[in-house]
Amino acid sequence: MAGDAGRTGRPALAVVGATGAVGAVMLQILSQRADIWGEIRLIASPRSAGRRLAVRGEEVEVVALTEEAFDGIDVALFDVPDEVAERWAPVAAAKGVVVVDNSGAFRMDPDVPLVVPEVNPHAVRMRRRGIVANPSCTTLSMIVALGSLHAEFGLRELVVSAYLAASGAGRAGVTTLRQQLSLVAGTELGTSPGDVRRAVGDRTGPFPEPVVLNVVPWAGTPREDGWSSEEMKVRGETRKILGLPELPVAVTCVRVPVVTAHALTVHARFEGEVTVDKAREILATAPGVVLFDNPEAGEFPTPADVVGTDPTWVGRVRRALDDPTALELFVCGDNLRKGSALNTAQIAELVAADLA
Amino acid sequence: MAGDAGRTGRPALAVVGATGAVGAVMLQILSQRADIWGEIRLIASPRSAGRRLAVRGEEVEVVALTEEAFDGIDVALFDVPDEVAERWAPVAAAKGVVVVDNSGAFRMDPDVPLVVPEVNPHAVRMRRRGIVANPSCTTLSMIVALGSLHAEFGLRELVVSAYLAASGAGRAGVTTLRQQLSLVAGTELGTSPGDVRRAVGDRTGPFPEPVVLNVVPWAGTPREDGWSSEEMKVRGETRKILGLPELPVAVTCVRVPVVTAHALTVHARFEGEVTVDKAREILATAPGVVLFDNPEAGEFPTPADVVGTDPTWVGRVRRALDDPTALELFVCGDNLRKGSALNTAQIAELVAADLA
Repeated sequence: MAGDAGRTGRPALAVVGATGAVGAVMLQILSQRADIWGEIRLIASPRSAGRRLAVRGEEVEVVALTEEAFDGIDVALFDVPDEVAERWAPVAAAKGVVVVDNSGAFRMDPDVPLVVPEVNPHAVRMRRRGIVANPSCTTLSMIVALGSLHAEFGLRELVVSAYLAASGAGRAGVTTLRQQLSLVAGTELGTSPGDVRRAVGDRTGPFPEPVVLNVVPWAGTPREDGWSSEEMKVRGETRKILGLPELPVAVTCVRVPVVTAHALTVHARFEGEVTVDKAREILATAPGVVLFDNPEAGEFPTPADVVGTDPTWVGRVRRALDDPTALELFVCGDNLRKGSALNTAQIAELVAADLA
Repeated sequence: MAGDAGRTGRPALAVVGATGAVGAVMLQILSQRADIWGEIRLIASPRSAGRRLAVRGEEVEVVALTEEAFDGIDVALFDVPDEVAERWAPVAAAKGVVVVDNSGAFRMDPDVPLVVPEVNPHAVRMRRRGIVANPSCTTLSMIVALGSLHAEFGLRELVVSAYLAASGAGRAGVTTLRQQLSLVAGTELGTSPGDVRRAVGDRTGPFPEPVVLNVVPWAGTPREDGWSSEEMKVRGETRKILGLPELPVAVTCVRVPVVTAHALTVHARFEGEVTVDKAREILATAPGVVLFDNPEAGEFPTPADVVGTDPTWVGRVRRALDDPTALELFVCGDNLRKGSALNTAQIAELVAADLA
């Protein structure tokens, strides 16, 4: 093909899980970013093989996930369930492919780096298993902003509350939210105990409770002592990315009726006194961060306004009134872009530069 | 009237602001609780005078707010804007009426007690101005649970994030949310920057941004250093109610698309080591609190399930993994009942017992 002419000698990329919610955003992002790749091969479950998807303005046929699907590939982006990644990432890695994995299977593996290009780019080289992990979307929604403040002030403690979008639970999460919206629009529901629950019935999709006209303090699966898997991820991943293995991190994850873009409130305590002016200066100049913070003028980020954008948006920057070492932030970012597909693509670009 | 026969000699109650969102719930609550009152007089703005509202199974005509409207009244519940309370509460008090005020006008006045009957009932007697203040709905949504834990463990620090319901902004908040729901139901909105904002247009009602398919990190009016009035209320009121004037309190208030029932995540640090078992024992037996906490069985409170109920619901009780002196909680309660009308009615009952 004509389009391939200039691509000779460039690394070949595979996208594994190309037909999922994150996969769709990945193909958009690969089409928008600087085109550094030779072939881009789309891989999915045998069920999806044969479908044709657009990437870089070309239609590409999806091939089934097999060992041979990785022939000639240099870097593979995986966005598949944990058990699929556990099985297939080592298969690809054994063939010399560098795997950038967006599942939870390898994130806490000490031989697998967990990389956010704005925060710890050099870690990408420490890939003893040939696998680089992409953090979870909740961690990624805040870590770029936090990393910039940590570099200046030295982080000592985090208390985080998450306002998680439905698409964090995949396409089924979005479909469920939209269906529930149609069930409650035009009604007087939400004023007596359980009326929303009765209207929604068993149409709760991937959520344990209705998410429409509601917030649900649960995401993921149960872990020890009442914690959820999503909460434990944020703690473990934040510590690993920032290189602070003992950092106290308290997290509560709550699902909210938003389609896409996670939001988080962050109480961050640092080594010494901080000032809002310095914090704002850091956030205003940090790569990948947009400071949008003037409440008197109605300026603060909201999920509905930042969805579809790449940066981490930060607003409501305040110093704790009773602790000169602590800052309060409201952080907001697209969980499918920087929260998943974009960071994965950025890691792949770091790997490609490293291979060159 | 026959119904009045047994009421002779009982204190007379006035409800000022009877036609508002909280007023409507107040009339329900007065109809449900033990009937200790003689006359119940309904007072509102002249615009609403002449309307007939049901209370205790009887139709009562609303009278206009004037000085004479307080003739023969012993206790008056005020649910009116701050400036109306500022003007009229002293007028009623000067006539010997005990005012229980649900505005923000007097809450931080050192000569006005701020009362939560389960936490600081005795403070109701310290009403030097003849006024008792009712806390704001956000504070009330958590303070009963926190008060019970403070009594046992001794509170040292709070970090709170609020998930505030639309009805916290009054009837207009609910109307706005329902209108916005109808605008987005059946659409694919919420996936590109500002699409929800464009669909909603200027139909944002009392909110600075669309609340549907969104969360909005702002409630109230700007205060110094980037804080909102709602956040400052939670800090000041919590300190006053618990008698901890130096308590460090960090709060972020975020509006969510829920009709009624506020939710809060609470990180509470205490004087010494705490255990989840002891915390659960306290919460399970505290008056006005329901512990609903078994995530493995899908049990945690959500706004849609607790709306219309009286207690403060607590779930997700965990000890901070990195601090044996801190607990994490998810707290949920009806902002129009315990969060406003119910607590006001409870204070009035304390006052009535005190007058008897």
